[in-house]
Amino acid sequence: MPSRFVITLGCPDRTGIVARIASFLAEWGGWIVEAGYHTDPETGWFFTRQEVRADSLPFGVAELRERFARVADELGSTNWRVSDTSERRRVVLLVSKEGHCLHDLLGRVASGELDVDLRAVIGNHPRLRAITEAHGVPFHHVPFPSGTDQDAEDGAFHEVRALVEGHDPHAIVLARFMRIVPPEVCEEWAGRALNIHHSFLPSFAGARPYHQAYARGVKLVGATCHYVTPELDAGPIIEQDVTRVDHTDAATDMVRKGRDIEKIVLARGLRAHLEDRVLVHDKRTVVF
Amino acid sequence: MPSRFVITLGCPDRTGIVARIASFLAEWGGWIVEAGYHTDPETGWFFTRQEVRADSLPFGVAELRERFARVADELGSTNWRVSDTSERRRVVLLVSKEGHCLHDLLGRVASGELDVDLRAVIGNHPRLRAITEAHGVPFHHVPFPSGTDQDAEDGAFHEVRALVEGHDPHAIVLARFMRIVPPEVCEEWAGRALNIHHSFLPSFAGARPYHQAYARGVKLVGATCHYVTPELDAGPIIEQDVTRVDHTDAATDMVRKGRDIEKIVLARGLRAHLEDRVLVHDKRTVVF
Amino acid sequence: MPSRFVITLGCPDRTGIVARIASFLAEWGGWIVEAGYHTDPETGWFFTRQEVRADSLPFGVAELRERFARVADELGSTNWRVSDTSERRRVVLLVSKEGHCLHDLLGRVASGELDVDLRAVIGNHPRLRAITEAHGVPFHHVPFPSGTDQDAEDGAFHEVRALVEGHDPHAIVLARFMRIVPPEVCEEWAGRALNIHHSFLPSFAGARPYHQAYARGVKLVGATCHYVTPELDAGPIIEQDVTRVDHTDAATDMVRKGRDIEKIVLARGLRAHLEDRVLVHDKRTVVF
Amino acid sequence: MPSRFVITLGCPDRTGIVARIASFLAEWGGWIVEAGYHTDPETGWFFTRQEVRADSLPFGVAELRERFARVADELGSTNWRVSDTSERRRVVLLVSKEGHCLHDLLGRVASGELDVDLRAVIGNHPRLRAITEAHGVPFHHVPFPSGTDQDAEDGAFHEVRALVEGHDPHAIVLARFMRIVPPEVCEEWAGRALNIHHSFLPSFAGARPYHQAYARGVKLVGATCHYVTPELDAGPIIEQDVTRVDHTDAATDMVRKGRDIEKIVLARGLRAHLEDRVLVHDKRTVVF
Repeated sequence: MPSRFVITLGCPDRTGIVARIASFLAEWGGWIVEAGYHTDPETGWFFTRQEVRADSLPFGVAELRERFARVADELGSTNWRVSDTSERRRVVLLVSKEGHCLHDLLGRVASGELDVDLRAVIGNHPRLRAITEAHGVPFHHVPFPSGTDQDAEDGAFHEVRALVEGHDPHAIVLARFMRIVPPEVCEEWAGRALNIHHSFLPSFAGARPYHQAYARGVKLVGATCHYVTPELDAGPIIEQDVTRVDHTDAATDMVRKGRDIEKIVLARGLRAHLEDRVLVHDKRTVVF
Repeated sequence: MPSRFVITLGCPDRTGIVARIASFLAEWGGWIVEAGYHTDPETGWFFTRQEVRADSLPFGVAELRERFARVADELGSTNWRVSDTSERRRVVLLVSKEGHCLHDLLGRVASGELDVDLRAVIGNHPRLRAITEAHGVPFHHVPFPSGTDQDAEDGAFHEVRALVEGHDPHAIVLARFMRIVPPEVCEEWAGRALNIHHSFLPSFAGARPYHQAYARGVKLVGATCHYVTPELDAGPIIEQDVTRVDHTDAATDMVRKGRDIEKIVLARGLRAHLEDRVLVHDKRTVVF
Repeated sequence: MPSRFVITLGCPDRTGIVARIASFLAEWGGWIVEAGYHTDPETGWFFTRQEVRADSLPFGVAELRERFARVADELGSTNWRVSDTSERRRVVLLVSKEGHCLHDLLGRVASGELDVDLRAVIGNHPRLRAITEAHGVPFHHVPFPSGTDQDAEDGAFHEVRALVEGHDPHAIVLARFMRIVPPEVCEEWAGRALNIHHSFLPSFAGARPYHQAYARGVKLVGATCHYVTPELDAGPIIEQDVTRVDHTDAATDMVRKGRDIEKIVLARGLRAHLEDRVLVHDKRTVVF
Repeated sequence: MPSRFVITLGCPDRTGIVARIASFLAEWGGWIVEAGYHTDPETGWFFTRQEVRADSLPFGVAELRERFARVADELGSTNWRVSDTSERRRVVLLVSKEGHCLHDLLGRVASGELDVDLRAVIGNHPRLRAITEAHGVPFHHVPFPSGTDQDAEDGAFHEVRALVEGHDPHAIVLARFMRIVPPEVCEEWAGRALNIHHSFLPSFAGARPYHQAYARGVKLVGATCHYVTPELDAGPIIEQDVTRVDHTDAATDMVRKGRDIEKIVLARGLRAHLEDRVLVHDKRTVVF
């Protein structure tokens, strides 16, 4: 696919925003191939995402960014971005022992569906090393304390941070990492760290959601892909889905059926994030 | 459809239960047209529901009940029932101002899909009188206090109870009744009162669930049909479903989209209940 | 809701379209509250739909239409429209004996969810007269021949056309009308007549789709809302959905479960149509 | 999980079948842990599937089979089976170039979710060799003619058959194999060969279903897992599902979204087949 520049912007709503951006692009011959606009009436905030054919503009992404800065400034936006689809997205995965999300993402990369630069997989358990390396992806095992040794936990997270930062990733994916990320790491990874939680949040936050779901007798189980924030399982939701269960499903069946939803929800959420389709406003997301 | 006898039973699991019941029926020539069995491994409890052609047995429902009591006793069941599908199910609806569930149920009755004896609609507001009476169903307006006058509230519920009991209904359906049923009324209506809650429980129990859902930024909204118990919105769940929403949906759009799910979930839950398909065990249901 | 003007347009894609339209609106102070854009890469066709606050413009819908005509002309569009949401949409329903879609739409109108001017219901059978009139809507019975008397059929359709045209409706809804609309009537009603077909088209076009579905043993049944065109059940699809069935569902159960989907699919399709969200291009639709 | 014996049986419906089977099991102390019954009113055929704890019976699967034969005979069944869950299911996969279904199944096996003896993957293209072997599964490349050389085609299928038969598999899975299986091979593999077709059959049988779906403008795309029979894409359906698409989805997006459904539908269908949950009657399936 030919390269495209993606502009995303949020700003206070007023008349003329679409005209201002579109005229700016038209002036330089910019060919918009996809455009999304949204106004949130409750907050009076305007959001847009536009994809422009790179070859329709007489300059590159750096100059577009520089020139667009003035437009964004005029519109009062402090929350805009210009990116280039020809820059491959760098991704780091964080895993533990459960492999279904990892297997799924590796398969999507291998089959060409997910065209990313999968830089590394970091595991707090060594179990998933072999399959990761079989796909030609480096695996780092960072042991975590089994108990509540805070110093050891901090030390392990320190090592994870260092490994992650070395790759300057567009996305840090917690693919069933099963550790609570400390607030300062959440801060550092803000807007880049995605978690997959195995319930339809806000139901069943925290540990063992399928067992909570079983105990409550719900008729659907789900999964939620959200940005990681200091408050556990409370970050802005990117994507959710559910699947039907019934009384014949034991908690272990719910786990099995739920995993298919986790895989799909994570894959959709990650794709949306990497294509710069997700704009966060307060605790909610706009997903173009 | 020719008449059928429906047997439901829950008892401690052991070998030979299916044989015991099936042999009892076979002995009298009983022709089983539908049979469901379920064992819950966590609680060691066994559940069954069987439909037998009435004309295949040499006796009526009363004698079947009497004869089956011995079988149930042998199996240690304190929780069994024998009913006759030729006895039309009596239903009473409790409503307030929002008419979508009422319209839907009246439509299902009118089109013959829901073949019940809709005895009465009781409204805590007079707004839905005209449409109810246009369908030939009696409407009773029982005014409730707008504030927190406990005596007036108790008095109003007293009147509702009296009206309900006069019909000896198989189902008392809270179709967006919007009042909290007092514990002693819950007790009296136990196993017969169904509520439709406009969220995917346990998320967003209580008031204004769509607005809660909007604030949390979820990507699906749902509805739950459950038995009414003293703990608000915590009764055993009969049926649930969801529909997709996104950032373009304001809270009012969620209300609109959610209503379609409410209608379907209530209709499915009510049907299952009236066909004696729902067996409650602790806080969970088996829906055959 | 304050009144809005809705502009829809399709034209050959090129650079500057968004800028042209947005600048035109901005020049007059037009406040865009919702905007959708789509480019179909296969056909090179561009589509847009914009909602503008009526009170943000210094003129009314007639003048907006006149002024916009020049923009549309410049963009080479032969397929654009400007409408005013304050003009209530006029709707005529065509029915036969099955009432579930009619009940559903009447309920939506009565509860205020569907804010339309329901002008008339025309039935080829008198069965649904009472419920229609109970909702205060005029009902016309136009008898159709039971056999294949082409003259009688033509005569009946002639009468239906006359009744329909008298209302100059925005939408003519075939809510299980069960007669094949003659080509010249399709022509006359082009872009305004919506049908609900009780299968997930293109599977099971024609008669008795649920029985076809049962015979094939499918695991989902569905419904399709589409524009009526001379080729039976082949018009551009506006909306579809499905619901799960299994071996315990006889054809009659499929009918019952499918009806819930028919009602929802028709309601969604009709809403999209009446809000001018549906743009047709060849045999496909863009639904903003 | 402790070992279980699974009995499946289809026979003409009459009274006493459940009693006959249940009494037979009870006589030997058989502990039924799961039981499904179904009567098809159209064909008058009865179906059952029962799981019995192996350790509750005083004999093994061979003697159970021998003893049950008399019961089945009495009931007029020519279509029954007794199997032992402790015998690991042998599976052979047939693939071509598209790897998503293979990746998915390998991941399910690796994560322990699908506990089968994956004997071999046979590819008509060598592309998927590396990933297969990385999972420790033998890969056989059987080249097929690119044109219409019937002898070469027959020869290739001859080789595939020989490879398959060497494993005596419970399931032969065509995971996007992309060749039409000759009638005599269908015959040989009858009841054991499962195909995943990338559409919601019967819509879009044959080649390039997503492109057919795009051209028709449908709003959902789906997948179908069915038994392979000589008539292309017309075998009994085991499982189906769909996912929503809209006008923003090009045919390639439909391919991508549809793949997630293909993977899930195939996994569900295969699991049901391997657990002996699928009974075929004419062109329809009962899936317990």
